[in-house]
Amino acid sequence: MFNFAFIKLNTIKLKVAITRKEHFNSAHRLHNPKWSNEKNKEIFGKCNNVNYHGHNYDLEVKVIGYVDEETGYVIDTKYLSEIIKSKVLEKFDHKNLNLDVEEFKFLNPTVENIAILVFRLLRPHIEKKYELKIKLYETPRNFVEYPYE
Amino acid sequence: MFNFAFIKLNTIKLKVAITRKEHFNSAHRLHNPKWSNEKNKEIFGKCNNVNYHGHNYDLEVKVIGYVDEETGYVIDTKYLSEIIKSKVLEKFDHKNLNLDVEEFKFLNPTVENIAILVFRLLRPHIEKKYELKIKLYETPRNFVEYPYE
Amino acid sequence: MFNFAFIKLNTIKLKVAITRKEHFNSAHRLHNPKWSNEKNKEIFGKCNNVNYHGHNYDLEVKVIGYVDEETGYVIDTKYLSEIIKSKVLEKFDHKNLNLDVEEFKFLNPTVENIAILVFRLLRPHIEKKYELKIKLYETPRNFVEYPYE
Amino acid sequence: MFNFAFIKLNTIKLKVAITRKEHFNSAHRLHNPKWSNEKNKEIFGKCNNVNYHGHNYDLEVKVIGYVDEETGYVIDTKYLSEIIKSKVLEKFDHKNLNLDVEEFKFLNPTVENIAILVFRLLRPHIEKKYELKIKLYETPRNFVEYPYE
Amino acid sequence: MFNFAFIKLNTIKLKVAITRKEHFNSAHRLHNPKWSNEKNKEIFGKCNNVNYHGHNYDLEVKVIGYVDEETGYVIDTKYLSEIIKSKVLEKFDHKNLNLDVEEFKFLNPTVENIAILVFRLLRPHIEKKYELKIKLYETPRNFVEYPYE
Amino acid sequence: MFNFAFIKLNTIKLKVAITRKEHFNSAHRLHNPKWSNEKNKEIFGKCNNVNYHGHNYDLEVKVIGYVDEETGYVIDTKYLSEIIKSKVLEKFDHKNLNLDVEEFKFLNPTVENIAILVFRLLRPHIEKKYELKIKLYETPRNFVEYPYE
Repeated sequence: MFNFAFIKLNTIKLKVAITRKEHFNSAHRLHNPKWSNEKNKEIFGKCNNVNYHGHNYDLEVKVIGYVDEETGYVIDTKYLSEIIKSKVLEKFDHKNLNLDVEEFKFLNPTVENIAILVFRLLRPHIEKKYELKIKLYETPRNFVEYPYE
Repeated sequence: MFNFAFIKLNTIKLKVAITRKEHFNSAHRLHNPKWSNEKNKEIFGKCNNVNYHGHNYDLEVKVIGYVDEETGYVIDTKYLSEIIKSKVLEKFDHKNLNLDVEEFKFLNPTVENIAILVFRLLRPHIEKKYELKIKLYETPRNFVEYPYE
Repeated sequence: MFNFAFIKLNTIKLKVAITRKEHFNSAHRLHNPKWSNEKNKEIFGKCNNVNYHGHNYDLEVKVIGYVDEETGYVIDTKYLSEIIKSKVLEKFDHKNLNLDVEEFKFLNPTVENIAILVFRLLRPHIEKKYELKIKLYETPRNFVEYPYE
Repeated sequence: MFNFAFIKLNTIKLKVAITRKEHFNSAHRLHNPKWSNEKNKEIFGKCNNVNYHGHNYDLEVKVIGYVDEETGYVIDTKYLSEIIKSKVLEKFDHKNLNLDVEEFKFLNPTVENIAILVFRLLRPHIEKKYELKIKLYETPRNFVEYPYE
Repeated sequence: MFNFAFIKLNTIKLKVAITRKEHFNSAHRLHNPKWSNEKNKEIFGKCNNVNYHGHNYDLEVKVIGYVDEETGYVIDTKYLSEIIKSKVLEKFDHKNLNLDVEEFKFLNPTVENIAILVFRLLRPHIEKKYELKIKLYETPRNFVEYPYE
Repeated sequence: MFNFAFIKLNTIKLKVAITRKEHFNSAHRLHNPKWSNEKNKEIFGKCNNVNYHGHNYDLEVKVIGYVDEETGYVIDTKYLSEIIKSKVLEKFDHKNLNLDVEEFKFLNPTVENIAILVFRLLRPHIEKKYELKIKLYETPRNFVEYPYE
């Protein structure tokens, strides 16, 4: 009986996306070391402030796949939350992105690049059968999505 | 004159999505009756609590189609809201999903499965010319989308 | 120099309130065991559903006092967060308030009574020099504050 | 060294979407001048109120493209914000959409049509290499997306 | 037993506040008919736009009193919600405050004055033993509270 | 007629509070220079990170007074917004609070101390007939209010 009802609900076998939200608080500045200070100031404005500024980043990690018939889960959100904490928050939270995160020593920590890096940090820990998408809010008014499409 | 302006705005005939948000408050527990109590506890953790727990579910129902030239609507959101209330909220709101909702008597009421059921309850009441998508928040930190893509 | 600046900022010695938000997800039903089932249904409506329903409760715990000159804190929010987790969330989160929480076996778990109980659970763990106030959201549209004034 | 790290992060060359949120406050009424007053009232209900009503519109403008290797930006959000302000907010904010916005003199200012118009106002000011998408909230419970797909 | 536990929780008899949120969407303009058009424009700026603009008003109605021992309620929020709907929303929602609401024919519908009027409309329907407080958001960035203190 | 209605609404002459929300993004670290590095780390934990971290601060400035009969305002929120921008945001936004804000060179920039400083920066620019209150969110989960009571 259980199987019947379960299978019935999933006959069309469309994909479901499940998203987990986490957050981290970091300092950063936007700066391209190949440019003069003047050009950096002109392009990045107050985001180039030499002593850094910071944000509460809100991170949404979306995993796309089929619902498992035994669990009713796409993926266990407890696992997802742990992976985000150990691979991303541990590295970014209460840190200076430019100084404390190796990948940003030579890469500008724009919200676009942070989202791409989050994707690369998480991708190896999410099974290949799943798609993975990142949404990252730098402020409630500015956010990025990667990969898009 | 009216027609002209109207037609002009819609020449490209791209699709528009319109979304209506509603909410319901339900009790549930995650449990697979084919498993032992130990396995249920191991897999579902505190979500398996024998006496249930509960959530304020936030539901977004998205309907995708073309804008009607007479009304300027994709679909009347009053109709959409009434259908959600009569077909979904009436069944789920202030209820125990496991005990009071027939479809979950043999199906685990994970947020994934609830979203799929919401889709199935609404689909017959939305004309075939429209696409339908469901987004369901179990908490502000966990949500699903179905169908995805 | 440090002391001077610090003292200067605090000469007026007005109180500061600091608030920490946490959340828990619980099932409950409203029911007065001294009344008939009919009267319970009449008074509590769908909140009286015999199989329970549930909520995502958002809890704000406010502590009011003076800023410590050494730390710049009213109270350490890490301590506050730990106390809320061990004394309140451990007891309420992913539980059935009526069945799993002893205090509600003979007390109706309205949002008013839950807030009063949260206050009583936390008060012994917050030093007497502080005032303590509780704000509890049952839904984003209904919330209580205790004590008020 | 900088180049190496940068290139490494972008080898897959997937698209990134960046979104900027702005808002405007406008009066409007829904009305089709080709219909009788009775039909307008029947179809649009209280939204047809002859003296208008109004909303706080929340507007999200999404630009989709590749990350520039020099800046780490898809597009400069300062530019995006300025374009939204000069081309959309200047026209809609603290205005009556029916009376003060020429395009709505013969077109019903539903949230669908407003979103389509926002798209048309912004598209010429966003380089062709970018995709552009509009999300417009009429209330926190009703919103549209255009183009969808 | 029930009484004992109940009484125990309420021995200190402190007040509890319960708040209900509702919303309405209205058009308005700020204008003092005793002033010249020039002075109105100078003082109220774009809020003086002759054809009106509008807002999604979020209304919080707070009732302060003691918890009833039989119900565990300060006041029944269903009653509170109905009173707000019949006395306030019926009058303001999808209306032009200046033209459709009699009290604003000679009174400037600033968010301050709207909140005072909401208080006066509700006060006769809330028993004298309760205190009543109004919080009214004109936008998510501007809100008033009345009476304050 | 206008006067009559107006006076009628204000006969009780209770106070109204009006609040304006603004935000700023800053880097900071918690550190007491009179303590050893070990003690700083022990007390402030990851908030003591030597290279700083940061936040999106949400600031609410509340002004309490009587409604002016000519304008219907407690205070002009445009003035309030300008004062916040010139006296607070100019100083804090996209800055490092420890390094770029003189007052924090010898004072720990906890959210409590930032709120007190905001109050001191704004108080001289708000007429004495008004009360002034500050609410400052460091994150959506931690906020302070000053002065309290």
